[in-house]
Amino acid sequence: MSEQNLNNREATVLITGGTGFVGSHLLTYLQTLGYRQIHLTSYGQVDDWFLAQLPATQIHQIDLTDQLATKKLLKQLSPRYIYHLASIASVGDSFIRLQQILDNNIKLQLSLLVSLQELNLHSKILIVGSADEYGASLKGELPINEQHPFRPVNPYAVSKITQDMLAYTWFKAYKQQIIRVRPFAHIGARQTANFSIASFAKQIALIEKGKQEILQVGNLSARRDFTDVRDVVKAYHLLMQRGEVGEVYNIGSGRAVTMKQVVDWLIDLAKVPIKIKTDVARLRPIDIDVMVADVTKLEKLGWQPSVSLQESLKTVLNYWRETL
Amino acid sequence: MSEQNLNNREATVLITGGTGFVGSHLLTYLQTLGYRQIHLTSYGQVDDWFLAQLPATQIHQIDLTDQLATKKLLKQLSPRYIYHLASIASVGDSFIRLQQILDNNIKLQLSLLVSLQELNLHSKILIVGSADEYGASLKGELPINEQHPFRPVNPYAVSKITQDMLAYTWFKAYKQQIIRVRPFAHIGARQTANFSIASFAKQIALIEKGKQEILQVGNLSARRDFTDVRDVVKAYHLLMQRGEVGEVYNIGSGRAVTMKQVVDWLIDLAKVPIKIKTDVARLRPIDIDVMVADVTKLEKLGWQPSVSLQESLKTVLNYWRETL
Repeated sequence: MSEQNLNNREATVLITGGTGFVGSHLLTYLQTLGYRQIHLTSYGQVDDWFLAQLPATQIHQIDLTDQLATKKLLKQLSPRYIYHLASIASVGDSFIRLQQILDNNIKLQLSLLVSLQELNLHSKILIVGSADEYGASLKGELPINEQHPFRPVNPYAVSKITQDMLAYTWFKAYKQQIIRVRPFAHIGARQTANFSIASFAKQIALIEKGKQEILQVGNLSARRDFTDVRDVVKAYHLLMQRGEVGEVYNIGSGRAVTMKQVVDWLIDLAKVPIKIKTDVARLRPIDIDVMVADVTKLEKLGWQPSVSLQESLKTVLNYWRETL
Repeated sequence: MSEQNLNNREATVLITGGTGFVGSHLLTYLQTLGYRQIHLTSYGQVDDWFLAQLPATQIHQIDLTDQLATKKLLKQLSPRYIYHLASIASVGDSFIRLQQILDNNIKLQLSLLVSLQELNLHSKILIVGSADEYGASLKGELPINEQHPFRPVNPYAVSKITQDMLAYTWFKAYKQQIIRVRPFAHIGARQTANFSIASFAKQIALIEKGKQEILQVGNLSARRDFTDVRDVVKAYHLLMQRGEVGEVYNIGSGRAVTMKQVVDWLIDLAKVPIKIKTDVARLRPIDIDVMVADVTKLEKLGWQPSVSLQESLKTVLNYWRETL
């Protein structure tokens, strides 16, 4: 084990929103690497899964929009690394919950940045934006690199742009050690069924158990860039170690597949025949045709995805089979 | 007078934040063009100047972050045109008032967009962003066109990016008739002394009256693009008539001058000798070296500035001489 790894094993790591989908995979990965001082924040109830992974004293129930509470926690932990995952990640209903999503995502970003600044802490911070910031692409703009303009088509995307821009501002104004990422769609075990792939897999598992009849789907012509969440968290860790402070990095596979193709693969994996139906409630006020990442910048640091999409889909389907 | 002008004279116009600096000039210009149904919103106390220009019933005291009140007003007026000027426009202290500025500017933008959507009104709306959205430029990025990336260096700029992006989102999702503008620095009578040129002119007027000794200045090496506010409001009206819905337009002179040059011109206009001193309190945590607009897109619609910078400075200085 290299000196850096020995050193990092004792570094305090804070994962905000660590008790969510991505947080769970990041926790596992960091533990595999030997990190011991990993702390998570959680807003709501904590799943038993997390309590089986690390001591309850390392899981902090906190509302990060509360700046005083945030400052107190940061002072207590003085983390060397902060993975800022906390956010309301909801695209589908973001026109309905728009005030809440904007308020929440912006306030917790501010709370974190201002607390670090006031405490004069030099933690390295990874800020998680979203490919949704790019939104609609024009001809000739694909694949999407980090210079692609922002053309958001939902309030969630705007909240992510604001987080991203606040992070940039604090880097410029206060030299905070900030690295920003814009991940494209990612999938895996423990993702909630608000997201399309998780929803499809859950429905198929229900159909297999005879508890549902037809697979309800949305717009299947859209093309998306999917990455297994285990590859995404590897990118987060790599960027924390080797990313350039102040810079922003796309994370994605660099390949677009139609939702139709994904559904077909899932149906191939099913143990029973599956009938599908388009549910108009699953269609968004506006949807984007194609989203595909240019990940040249990240690949230059030595990252590439290791889990194939079909393998990833199998994992997701098995997760729902075991969970339901 | 053309048919369109006759028609427009009776169109209801709403200027949010209309009782501010830019609002006052927009009001005067629209009145000159023959518009009669001009309504203003005001958050604070209304200056007597406005009460001399139009009936008190056309000035609405309202907190636009209050969505119910906003919706009620829009329902009552059903404006054909909305110039959305309301915003806290404060760069200098935006790190101190950051929560307030972000909260306010975002909430009032949302309140307006959601109210129009809920009322199913098809008002044409001009959304006022800022050149500050662009922030720091890299080599080869000057002059700044509308594709320049966002690299904001203060929270005010982030609040303007969020307003801009929300407006784009509502245009895309609900086909709202939105035109966005990003004006560079503008100056004129009635601008508050929080802004550099107004502050310099006010101080010189005070020195002329023997009430101050030395002109306090900030960073004089910065280069900025100044436009007379009367030219800016002409651009607003032109864009409301001829701008393309969904698009964004820079407004500026296309020329950068150093702050040193501006101060020298003002000193030349002074009736007494002026000594200057750099006040560290006037230096920002981070300042941008050069900001200069590429206004090709706006010029194609037939706009160009008509008031020279020296003429404009004379107007500002005379305003402060008469006011103090």
